[in-house]
Amino acid sequence: MVGIGPGHPLDRTRRAEEAIARSRVVIGYQRYLDLIADLTEGKELIATGMTAEVERCRIALERAEGGEEVALVSSGDPGIYGMAGLALELAAAHKSPVPIEIIPGVSSANAAAARLGAPLMCDFATISLSDLLVPWETIRARIEAVAAADLVCVLYNPRSKKRRKQLDEAAALFRAHRSGATPVGIGTSLGTEGETVVLTNLDDFLNHPIGMRSIVIIGNSSSQHLGNWFITPRGYRLSW
Amino acid sequence: MVGIGPGHPLDRTRRAEEAIARSRVVIGYQRYLDLIADLTEGKELIATGMTAEVERCRIALERAEGGEEVALVSSGDPGIYGMAGLALELAAAHKSPVPIEIIPGVSSANAAAARLGAPLMCDFATISLSDLLVPWETIRARIEAVAAADLVCVLYNPRSKKRRKQLDEAAALFRAHRSGATPVGIGTSLGTEGETVVLTNLDDFLNHPIGMRSIVIIGNSSSQHLGNWFITPRGYRLSW
Repeated sequence: MVGIGPGHPLDRTRRAEEAIARSRVVIGYQRYLDLIADLTEGKELIATGMTAEVERCRIALERAEGGEEVALVSSGDPGIYGMAGLALELAAAHKSPVPIEIIPGVSSANAAAARLGAPLMCDFATISLSDLLVPWETIRARIEAVAAADLVCVLYNPRSKKRRKQLDEAAALFRAHRSGATPVGIGTSLGTEGETVVLTNLDDFLNHPIGMRSIVIIGNSSSQHLGNWFITPRGYRLSW
Repeated sequence: MVGIGPGHPLDRTRRAEEAIARSRVVIGYQRYLDLIADLTEGKELIATGMTAEVERCRIALERAEGGEEVALVSSGDPGIYGMAGLALELAAAHKSPVPIEIIPGVSSANAAAARLGAPLMCDFATISLSDLLVPWETIRARIEAVAAADLVCVLYNPRSKKRRKQLDEAAALFRAHRSGATPVGIGTSLGTEGETVVLTNLDDFLNHPIGMRSIVIIGNSSSQHLGNWFITPRGYRLSW
């Protein structure tokens, strides 16, 4: 399981590049394979569709059981809403003897935070709004708890073409506990050519484009706009 | 602001290495400078003590204002309990004209999760138990909310020589909401020679060594021990 970071070649770790270099077979969603095309010349590439996660893991395990070194790639970090857990579950369910290494990467939350400033300097929560695998009532209760506890919140999978109301509801839950002027940052397609970064606030952020490749960061009561940056101060005394 | 990852040279990104390579001056806590000794030959190195964060940022800004390219290094990710926020705050307070780039890295939570398995596959919260800059009552209320909302939780700065009761109290709060068999992982000195990784549970984890360089990950009601792995399943159907 190799995490390749948010997308830009410079944001990969050397460990990830070395793992891909020594693999004969590289498996992933087509868009992720495109992001590492500079590393895969001469290798067997296997691409599956966006929702074919189980198939991807199964093929990776089968090929590895055949004695080949296989890299199963994930954008960001495979351990954060990625496929690391699924690969381990499948391996355990099938008593696969294949040794598995999980190579962490810079996750989308970390990349978005760096572009926006320093919104995640203090305690925060990370919540996915996709209710494909988790019931919306569970997600909703978590958002409510996080909003009430004044935690900064990173929203993964905030919206897709077919799924729009979850983000509206999340916004209303945060708005019930926080000022409309609370800083909100939106990072989209980070590390790739179409990257956009928007700094806005809780009252305004739904007016900006947000999609499947966006990460939304909602500030807490300490968060500030500081020029063009979004920061959540840790409370240091700023003696010069 | 350059994040160098958890400690091992292979876990740095190329962006971080390039930023250090083009800097004349490299500033950081001595232990972080030791971790990048292979990159800093011939450069001016400025080390300050563990708690001299403001001084470190001030020196970095002053030197950069003098026209030099400066790398202020942070282990893990500078945006996660690091110094990115402080650097931006100081720069704003002093109307410093220096352009600042924040280079994200693999954070300790991501590294610990990868060594343990896949505990952070679903929603989670990250809380620091250090009450040096945040009142304990605030931290305690956040732990209570996170424990009640069944979120997996990453504890940063769980314990130091002088600060022991916070972790005991956090354990009791989680124990009030979760089974004693809930998986708990401890990663210490990740990426360095003294690295240790322990997989245990909520009833037992306080019996293991935990210190300033440890990260503790507390599972939720879905988390499982799977052989030697700690995973929080996302809910995929495991059809082979």
